[in-house]
Amino acid sequence: MTKIAVVEGDGIGREVVPIARAVIEAVRPDLEFFEVEAGYGLWKRTGNACGEETMADLRSADAVLFGAVTTPPDPGYRSVLLQIRRELDLYANVRPIRGEGVDIVIVRENTEGLYSGIEWMESDRACTVRVVSRRGSERIARYACALAKSRRHLTVGNKANVLKSDCLFVEVCTAEAARAGVPCRTCYIDALALDLLMHPDRYDVVVTTNIFGDILSDAAAYLVGGLGMLPSANIGERHALFEPVHGSAPDIAGRNIANPVAAIRSGAMLLSHLGDAAAAAAVEEAVRRVLGAGIQTRDLGGVAGTREFGAAVLREVGRG
Amino acid sequence: MTKIAVVEGDGIGREVVPIARAVIEAVRPDLEFFEVEAGYGLWKRTGNACGEETMADLRSADAVLFGAVTTPPDPGYRSVLLQIRRELDLYANVRPIRGEGVDIVIVRENTEGLYSGIEWMESDRACTVRVVSRRGSERIARYACALAKSRRHLTVGNKANVLKSDCLFVEVCTAEAARAGVPCRTCYIDALALDLLMHPDRYDVVVTTNIFGDILSDAAAYLVGGLGMLPSANIGERHALFEPVHGSAPDIAGRNIANPVAAIRSGAMLLSHLGDAAAAAAVEEAVRRVLGAGIQTRDLGGVAGTREFGAAVLREVGRG
Ligand SMILES: CC(C)[C@H](C(=O)O)[C@@H](O)C(=O)O
Ligand SMILES: CC(C)[C@H](C(=O)O)[C@@H](O)C(=O)O
Repeated sequence: MTKIAVVEGDGIGREVVPIARAVIEAVRPDLEFFEVEAGYGLWKRTGNACGEETMADLRSADAVLFGAVTTPPDPGYRSVLLQIRRELDLYANVRPIRGEGVDIVIVRENTEGLYSGIEWMESDRACTVRVVSRRGSERIARYACALAKSRRHLTVGNKANVLKSDCLFVEVCTAEAARAGVPCRTCYIDALALDLLMHPDRYDVVVTTNIFGDILSDAAAYLVGGLGMLPSANIGERHALFEPVHGSAPDIAGRNIANPVAAIRSGAMLLSHLGDAAAAAAVEEAVRRVLGAGIQTRDLGGVAGTREFGAAVLREVGRG
Repeated sequence: MTKIAVVEGDGIGREVVPIARAVIEAVRPDLEFFEVEAGYGLWKRTGNACGEETMADLRSADAVLFGAVTTPPDPGYRSVLLQIRRELDLYANVRPIRGEGVDIVIVRENTEGLYSGIEWMESDRACTVRVVSRRGSERIARYACALAKSRRHLTVGNKANVLKSDCLFVEVCTAEAARAGVPCRTCYIDALALDLLMHPDRYDVVVTTNIFGDILSDAAAYLVGGLGMLPSANIGERHALFEPVHGSAPDIAGRNIANPVAAIRSGAMLLSHLGDAAAAAAVEEAVRRVLGAGIQTRDLGGVAGTREFGAAVLREVGRG
């Protein structure tokens, strides 16, 4: 029995995840779902946002469907998402940007870079170490090259003209691309942020370090209607977690206006990860048809509510 | 006598700077210009891209008009631009993004963050220290707040949900904004990269750390026609350098197709820095009129050459 852990989390996570789950269940009634609590809400109730019990539950699952968690800028609070990515060693953050004339996959290294957690305060300055390891670069490069091999080509986003740490990253990625026989070029991350917007057709798979991927994928969301549209996968050797790129959006939570597309598409990525390409394609196709029929949430200029959009997708998958 | 050091540098720097200089000279024939050599070309000839003599020349100037220098990704080569910014302590990198419905100024901290130069290689990983100092944050916050005071409001781009070093940056900026009486809000840099594109009208002055400002300004160039349009100022207590945001673009160099607008507008910023708001406005207006007349370089979809565009701007300032 394949077991899917479901973490709604906070804010709009609680609205979009139930829809994504219902859509997955509709195409794969055989999967076993179980709810796992984590996040700011849990923390306020219990003092622990993601304790050992939560982690054990997540580890026991074949895949995790994740919503969003609120991270207060309280220095004492550790981001749940970062904790999970780290403890499950989810090293590849895969973010497809798909839409009219756009078909890009950003592969973001997800465990190191500026997210090293190595930080300290000196007398009058705060320091964070950006870490680029050979092993970390190698495994993300392999992941990105394997993906690019089945697609078209690879772009390595970097800032090697300033950061020596990126010379290592570029060296490893280009070597891996050569070995894999993948056409590859490098691009400075600032220039890339602009060129991706101006000429999305020139990009296919983009691999980059952690925070560059974070910024780049949000900027690229501009091409396809914003964050409400972007799904993501966080992949490790043994675990995998699927989540919309958007956050918990407390400002719009509980109002039935959040766009559930990102969460539903994350569900499709989960299905694909389980090896069920047909089910994944059915979900993607259902979303496309609903959007194409003009049923859209407010962020896209439509009037459909979160639940109404979800119901429309459910009808489509039922039909498919 | 006010002395302007002119550094053409490499690539298209050699094409756009002479035009910017001619435009400045046309409105201010009293300024004294002197050429200073620096960059990759000089390095290839002399083994030194920016030696003590160059630095002394730059220090002796009242302002520097700078083109672009090529930075080969050779680990032994140090970026001339970074060297100059550091040695002249040009702490504020000011990048106006102006165009149809867009009027934003990105104020980028220009001396620390990931550009600290504190880097090392451990056994199997490369590390760079991101440094955020209280003093560095205070002076850029003061600069940004003074600017925002004469405009509308301030946004502090940061990643304090991940980087403790950004908690300090945010704390200092918001405190300074409160003291200056400037309306201020904070925004995570990933969300900001997207929202700036989707809702440019919501932004006025944006202050952020070094590499975030680097990426954000390139992405924002999308709003106004790309890098060919973006000027910048690098401001310190004692020195100031004005340069297009674009690089030396070796791929298009020497073909009379580079867009000189960024360089000319950098010249306008230089005039404004010298206290001559009228001359700066005259140059800006001339550029606007020429563009409005449909005279545009290839990057904007036009057919005008670099020199032809420059000649048109010169005619306009002559007329004004
Ligand atoms: C919430 C935050 C810690 C996270 C990140 O920076 O990775 C988010 O922006 C993302 O992209 O998943
Ligand atoms: C060339 C490079 C060192 C420079 C930077 O990163 O600051 C450039 O991208 C810029 O924005 O001026």
